[in-house]
Amino acid sequence: MYKFLQGICNTRGASSVTILPVTSPHTLDVRRLPTISYFTKQMMQTSTLSTDLNAETAAAMLDAAIQKSMEVGVKMNIAIVDAGANLKAFHRMDGAWLGSIDIACKKAKTARFFDMPTGSIGDISQPGGPLYNIEHSNGGLISFPGGLPLINDQGTVIGAIGVSGSTVEDDHVVAQAGVDAVTAVCT
Amino acid sequence: MYKFLQGICNTRGASSVTILPVTSPHTLDVRRLPTISYFTKQMMQTSTLSTDLNAETAAAMLDAAIQKSMEVGVKMNIAIVDAGANLKAFHRMDGAWLGSIDIACKKAKTARFFDMPTGSIGDISQPGGPLYNIEHSNGGLISFPGGLPLINDQGTVIGAIGVSGSTVEDDHVVAQAGVDAVTAVCT
Amino acid sequence: MYKFLQGICNTRGASSVTILPVTSPHTLDVRRLPTISYFTKQMMQTSTLSTDLNAETAAAMLDAAIQKSMEVGVKMNIAIVDAGANLKAFHRMDGAWLGSIDIACKKAKTARFFDMPTGSIGDISQPGGPLYNIEHSNGGLISFPGGLPLINDQGTVIGAIGVSGSTVEDDHVVAQAGVDAVTAVCT
Amino acid sequence: MYKFLQGICNTRGASSVTILPVTSPHTLDVRRLPTISYFTKQMMQTSTLSTDLNAETAAAMLDAAIQKSMEVGVKMNIAIVDAGANLKAFHRMDGAWLGSIDIACKKAKTARFFDMPTGSIGDISQPGGPLYNIEHSNGGLISFPGGLPLINDQGTVIGAIGVSGSTVEDDHVVAQAGVDAVTAVCT
Repeated sequence: MYKFLQGICNTRGASSVTILPVTSPHTLDVRRLPTISYFTKQMMQTSTLSTDLNAETAAAMLDAAIQKSMEVGVKMNIAIVDAGANLKAFHRMDGAWLGSIDIACKKAKTARFFDMPTGSIGDISQPGGPLYNIEHSNGGLISFPGGLPLINDQGTVIGAIGVSGSTVEDDHVVAQAGVDAVTAVCT
Repeated sequence: MYKFLQGICNTRGASSVTILPVTSPHTLDVRRLPTISYFTKQMMQTSTLSTDLNAETAAAMLDAAIQKSMEVGVKMNIAIVDAGANLKAFHRMDGAWLGSIDIACKKAKTARFFDMPTGSIGDISQPGGPLYNIEHSNGGLISFPGGLPLINDQGTVIGAIGVSGSTVEDDHVVAQAGVDAVTAVCT
Repeated sequence: MYKFLQGICNTRGASSVTILPVTSPHTLDVRRLPTISYFTKQMMQTSTLSTDLNAETAAAMLDAAIQKSMEVGVKMNIAIVDAGANLKAFHRMDGAWLGSIDIACKKAKTARFFDMPTGSIGDISQPGGPLYNIEHSNGGLISFPGGLPLINDQGTVIGAIGVSGSTVEDDHVVAQAGVDAVTAVCT
Repeated sequence: MYKFLQGICNTRGASSVTILPVTSPHTLDVRRLPTISYFTKQMMQTSTLSTDLNAETAAAMLDAAIQKSMEVGVKMNIAIVDAGANLKAFHRMDGAWLGSIDIACKKAKTARFFDMPTGSIGDISQPGGPLYNIEHSNGGLISFPGGLPLINDQGTVIGAIGVSGSTVEDDHVVAQAGVDAVTAVCT
């Protein structure tokens, strides 16, 4: 678990799931940066994940995924969909593959369509596998890693993130960072 | 011209086009807000619009469009495409129409496809007009207002914004705010 | 308001919105009829419309729409979508137009996409209108009457119904019957 | 064969195929449940499978498939198509995968397109097989189990069922339950 989540978890207890403000150690003067100003401070501090992903959650996921991409040194396309698998937010980092726009979107949708990591589908859609060629459904699925569902503290899937732009391992790591930024289960 | 752009224009000269940080008077402590932290202070201060729209420009446009939407009191889908008409950034405000996801994207693409405001295409695509039913091309165009090209100081189109979620008048106003935030022509 | 809703409204007060069992005066022995047996009696009596349309609501809407179709003497395709505009239930009456399968689905989606009756969109998508040719978006919209959003007692759109198979007037009447069956606002 | 079909088979003879009312042992008072009231008692008792699947057959298949899903403990999308491979009825159980809407529909269509179980196509569409990548046709086929044709007592295919929402084994079992509910071949 991320170190900076510790304090919040300690005070809120094991079952809480909280939207966490994502801050970068490298940011010196964020007052000069573009911000999505309709997210109020109050929203960030008190919101918990409800039955649908909202704008602040999507922005926090995007931000965390971009930060992780910078740490890893990759250029990513990142897509966020809501509980209905409809696009909520998207960002393509400078220099990221154009072909990954659609893949990121399809990964996010695929993860929500089946409420599981996209790579889990790929495991069983291989030749000879039980779901061979499932990718032909839904206008095109992506069944390799990089898509992850977002699950609230009730176990309900409320959206998903899809990342594409590097190896599937990198894509997965960045997607996971997006999910981790908004879900913190203390143990 | 926006008042807060004045100082920069005065010091940099009439022909400069500068990426401007967009700040909200209502924001008290933006350090708690999600920010896209890979935009450095240096990038924000020195960049001029080049031959392709970059991430910071897209974010600044998104942010300005969201702020304008809040001022007007509307819930918008906002899409930004680059010089290649490929999706660069997207945001759907909470409660905005689901059907406007696609329309915002199509408006942005249409504006870049033809380097003009989407409404200008609609003027000549009416029954009897010279471009009647041009909307059938390119997988579907949107030819009513809400899409605007982004033009750099050399007169080159480097991307576009598409906004959908209210009347076409509101959509246009919000798209214009997105463009204005990153282009400042001093006179 | 339907007469058989009166009792429930009187006891629950003006603001209540309740899922109502739809029964036909012509049904003598429904034990012989196919029923969707995972709807329990308890669910039917106590549920109120939540933030997403569920199976029992969808079935009640389908049933009411079919009954209304029989009263009017028309053969309909009826589609129900949920809050995410995803198909929840569908029924094509015997002899109903094959071409209306897609139209019913698109009407339901269109009504949810823009949270309004489909006919309202058609009013402003005519040649010369502000939304001319909006039908080219979202893989094809239907902008004439027969699609209606379903709104819960909080004013949130939680799904929609689309009906196609006769005149647009008939389509609308049948769609309205579907909505009325599950929403009762006493005045 | 299901036990409750026995009596009918015994009295009607081996070659008859009868639409059977599907009842649940758990249902206490079905008069409170939503019913598709245009199915009359007479229709249910005397109909035999004709050359096209009708509404009552589709509803009986849906109902049986839903009951079987509940027994197995899975959440399914169930689609029924007619002799023309056109959608006749659809139901998504609460909590069933969104991605399975399209898969259920495509399984039903695939089963009718080739008048065989969908899994049989998958056997020969593998790499090196005679129908390799047939899934690219018809706007996307699904070639793993869960789709079954419905055959009348003359051996004519009159429709199909497609089920998706769990393992392919579960999908198949539920689809088979849908078929069994309306076809009874006594031996």
